[in-house]
Parts: sequence; structure tokens; C-alpha cells
Amino acid sequence: MDRAQEVVEKILGGEVRAAARLMRNLDDGLPGAREVLKLLYPHSGRAHVLGLTGSPGVGKSTLTDRLIQRLREEGRTVGVVAVDPTSPFSGGAILGDRIRMQRHALDEGVFIRSLATRGHFGGLTASARAVITVFDAMGKDYILVETVGVGQDEVEIAATADTTVVITVPGLGDDIQAIKAGILEVADILVVNKADREGASRTYQDLLQMLELQNIRKNQSWKPKVFLIQAKENQGIDELLAGVREHQDYLAGDLAGDQGLNAVRYQRARQEFLELLKEGVFRGLMERLSENGRLEEILQEILAKRIDPYSASEELIAETLGK
Amino acid sequence: MDRAQEVVEKILGGEVRAAARLMRNLDDGLPGAREVLKLLYPHSGRAHVLGLTGSPGVGKSTLTDRLIQRLREEGRTVGVVAVDPTSPFSGGAILGDRIRMQRHALDEGVFIRSLATRGHFGGLTASARAVITVFDAMGKDYILVETVGVGQDEVEIAATADTTVVITVPGLGDDIQAIKAGILEVADILVVNKADREGASRTYQDLLQMLELQNIRKNQSWKPKVFLIQAKENQGIDELLAGVREHQDYLAGDLAGDQGLNAVRYQRARQEFLELLKEGVFRGLMERLSENGRLEEILQEILAKRIDPYSASEELIAETLGK
Repeated sequence: MDRAQEVVEKILGGEVRAAARLMRNLDDGLPGAREVLKLLYPHSGRAHVLGLTGSPGVGKSTLTDRLIQRLREEGRTVGVVAVDPTSPFSGGAILGDRIRMQRHALDEGVFIRSLATRGHFGGLTASARAVITVFDAMGKDYILVETVGVGQDEVEIAATADTTVVITVPGLGDDIQAIKAGILEVADILVVNKADREGASRTYQDLLQMLELQNIRKNQSWKPKVFLIQAKENQGIDELLAGVREHQDYLAGDLAGDQGLNAVRYQRARQEFLELLKEGVFRGLMERLSENGRLEEILQEILAKRIDPYSASEELIAETLGK
Repeated sequence: MDRAQEVVEKILGGEVRAAARLMRNLDDGLPGAREVLKLLYPHSGRAHVLGLTGSPGVGKSTLTDRLIQRLREEGRTVGVVAVDPTSPFSGGAILGDRIRMQRHALDEGVFIRSLATRGHFGGLTASARAVITVFDAMGKDYILVETVGVGQDEVEIAATADTTVVITVPGLGDDIQAIKAGILEVADILVVNKADREGASRTYQDLLQMLELQNIRKNQSWKPKVFLIQAKENQGIDELLAGVREHQDYLAGDLAGDQGLNAVRYQRARQEFLELLKEGVFRGLMERLSENGRLEEILQEILAKRIDPYSASEELIAETLGK
């Protein structure tokens, strides 16, 4: 058995250390790591991927923490991908939060991986997908993907989860902003966290009303649910998880039709493939242009205003794609 | 005089309506608009571009508003690019904020353009750069670029401004997070807004200390300045603007050497060109793959697990770039 196959067997067997090493090697751009990932791919597709997104400060990490706890109590294994620079899972938060999260650190059934930067692997989406594939191949039951709902990449990653949960809090003016940023449109489930705050029921009602309008427009068979919770106080977590399962059953059932699990997986595969393609073509082209000095030449022409960047890029693109 | 040249003349003359129409047409992907942009490019490079970035809630928009006001009082013309889904300039905020901003709406010397989505033009960076080029060609003295310091694209846009201002507030735990996200490293000027809040002087001291460490490491001749301000109460704005001018003088002077205006402009041209190239190559490739049915074929192979997305993208990239 060759080296790559050996690593694959270990990861399929759920070995945390082998998986952690692979993820580091992927980040460092080791070619061997990519070969392992290729071999793992056919073994993915069994986990339920749960996306959690919302603005900074809405309590995504606390909610993630509560969901891990509840799923572990049920004996489910959990993988967590934190694509959120403000998440304590990414190590970027104040000490108190970090300590709170560490209680899962000794639990073998929980695996947390943070993606703070794009790394060597390629785009953010591709990096997140790679981690999801590894978790999935390891046999994790649930994969929680926490992203900050501000950047477009981050929203897209959460949007291609099996179930996408959008989190807000009362009084952020966020309910309105969410629509602007296109976040509401990707929500299968909406959560109003910090429900003890003033204006919680108003936010709840506003969201219901918006969903009503959206539903008419889209004619979807899944009607997004809205939950009022207090993650910190552990209130509403069971109800939320029941909602996640309802959506999980919906995706697997006949009712979903074109919007079921196959459609979600199709979108995810499409997104992943296209990002790999985009990053890879660009990187290959960049390397060539750097090596032969062409990039430097073009930049000097642009700076001297002898050519504009639009014409310069158009010429190069036509040349590369052979018209 | 042909149509494109006519539009160019109007924009060079500072005509707001012609410029606004061009920006809309660029968003809609009209090919004629791109031709106008090409003709405007040689006339850009005179404005001072000021990047303003920070997490949501730190008061970027209020500060932008104050800076516009002060610059206008001095008789300077101002262009504003808001690449921030949470900015009232993008129309995404609560009504009160929006009304507050509208006082500039009737001032011909202020032109505000928001970029909420990527639009048809290409990437976010390319869209922002296009707007900057138009403002610059119009003869605006200052171009303020407001971005939310969370997504990587947004940070990069602010980082290639002539002067980059990073805004934080006390007690966000943000000072620490800022480093994580790489925001601090791009700051020419740091602002602690809401300086009446508890912990302001602590945040100020922390930032000074971090800059000290950073300076030793980087051996830069520009030492980033830190300002304590209260944008809402109009306190500290004059001092901040003086700091911006000091940096502006620094860039133009001999002291800057390799880190002067030419270096900033080089980085900006490089970033713009590469994003145009990346988006353009990808788009061209996508069109071809969609037209000939190849994309659909590959996706079905991936979904059936007959190939993994990594191998599939590698094959296609090798084919496109001719090895």
C-alpha cells in the first residue's frame, strides 16, 4: 500500500491526527496532500452540512457551541469549519470566548478547523470545501460551517450547505440589511438570537412578513422557519435542531423535488469545481507571466499610461483562450 | 466626434450626469461603457485616494460623512465609493442614517457611488477601481473608499488606497482581531472612534504598542499615526485630516523612497490588472464550457463520483494553458 493510500485508510477510519496533518499540508500546498484529497472524494457525501451565517456580534459562535454540545449528547460526531475572522474558533477573539470553546478540545468526537486566510490551496470556497470533504470522509454525522455573513464568498459558502441557518439579533437594523446583502434569500432557517432583547418580537414579525413575500415570489415548497432563541442561556436550541431535522427530512423526501438534496449537492459541486478552475487557471497564467517577464512589462506600460488595464487584460485573455 | 469621445469630454469636464450614466452602464456590462473607461484611464492619477476600513459598527460612515463635510468646507471636491453592505451610503442602513447622509445629495461637489454587489463588471476590486478612475478623471480632489474590513477583497481594496485609515472602537476586542485579519498591517493611520467609551485610552495604548513592534519588523520610514476621535461629535476630525495630509506629503517626498506614491500606484495597477485578468479568463472559459456542454458533462461525472473536482479542474487547466 502506497503512502497516499495509507493516509486515506487512516482518515476513513476517523483518525484525527492523520486528518489534521492532511489539512495542514493542504494549507501549505503540498502536492501529495492534494492527491490524498482526490482519493477521499468518492467517500464523501454522507454528512449533513449545516451552514451558520450572520453579521459579527450576532452570536454565531455561541450558537455553534450549543449545537455541538447537543449533538454530542445525542452521540453524533461533529466537524466544524470556521470561516470567520471574528470567530473564537478561529482564535481571533477575546480570551473568555476562547476558553469557553476549549471544553470541546478534549472530545474526540468534535473536530474544529478554522480558515482565517485563503491559504495556499486556492480560494476560500475551495479551502472550505476541502475541509468539508475530509470531515465527510472521516464519517462525521454533522458538519457545521460558520461564516461571517458579510463578504460574498462567505455568504456563498454558507448558501451551499445542505441546511443554511441565518442568524440575526434584534435592533441591529440587520433584518433590513440582510435582504440587501442577499443573505435572507439563502436561508432555510432564520434565527433571532438574544431574544430577551427589546424588539425581538418585532424582528421576528418582520422576518415572517419578508419570508411571506419571498415565498410568493419563489414558489418554493420549503417555507423557511424562524426561531427565537437565547443561545447563551441554552434556550430554543432543541427547537432549532428539530427545525434542522425537519429540513433534512424535507430534502430527502419527495416534496422537495427539484429543490432537494440532489439540487443542493449539484450547486455545491458546481461552485467547488468552478472555484478550483478559476483559481487554477489564474495561478497557471500568473506563473507563466511572471516567469517570462510579461507581467512586469504590461504593468510598466499601464503605469506609463501607454495602455489601459482593460485593453491590456482583454488582449492577454484573447491570446490565452485562442480567441 | 464619436459618441464615446463625447461622453469622455463631458466626464473630463466634471459632468455628474454623464459620469453617473457611465457607472450604471458599466454595472450593466454595456460594451460601450468599457470603451469610455479605456479613454478615461490616461486622465486618472491625480486624486488622492483615501481608504477607510473597519468592522461593522465602528462608525465608518459617520466618519466618512464628517470628512466629506470638512473637505467641502475647504472647497475640495469629493468622490465616495462605498463597498460596504452595512453602509448607509449603500442604502442598506436604518432610515435615520440615510437621512443624515442625504444632506450631501444636493451638493454638486460630492459624488457618492455604492457597490453592494459585484455587478456585471467583474470582481469587486475591478468595479471599485473603475469608479475610482471615473472620479479621478472627473477631477475630484479626494476619493474616499469606504469598505467593511472583514472580507479579504474589501481589505485589499482599502489597502491599495494612497492613504489607508483603519477604524476601530474601544472594547470590541477588535484591536486583537485586526491583526489576525491582517488589517493592521495595511494601516497608514489608525483611528479609535467613540473615544468617550470606556477603555479608549487602553485601546489607544495597545495600538501604539503593536505599531512599535510592527515598525521594528518592517523597518518602514512611515510610522503609522493613531488618533482618538468622536466622529459623531465632530471631535478630532481636523487632527485626523492633518494626519492624512502629513501622509500625503510623505508619499510625495524623498523620505518615502520605495514606499512612496509610485509604489502605491504600482500595487494598485497590479491588483487591478490581475483581477481583470482573473475574472476575464474565467468568464471566457465559462462561456466556452457552457456553450459546448462540457461544464454540464464534467459536473455529472463529479456528482456520479467518477471523477473528483480536483482532477477534473487540473485536466481542464492543462488543456486551456496548453501545458
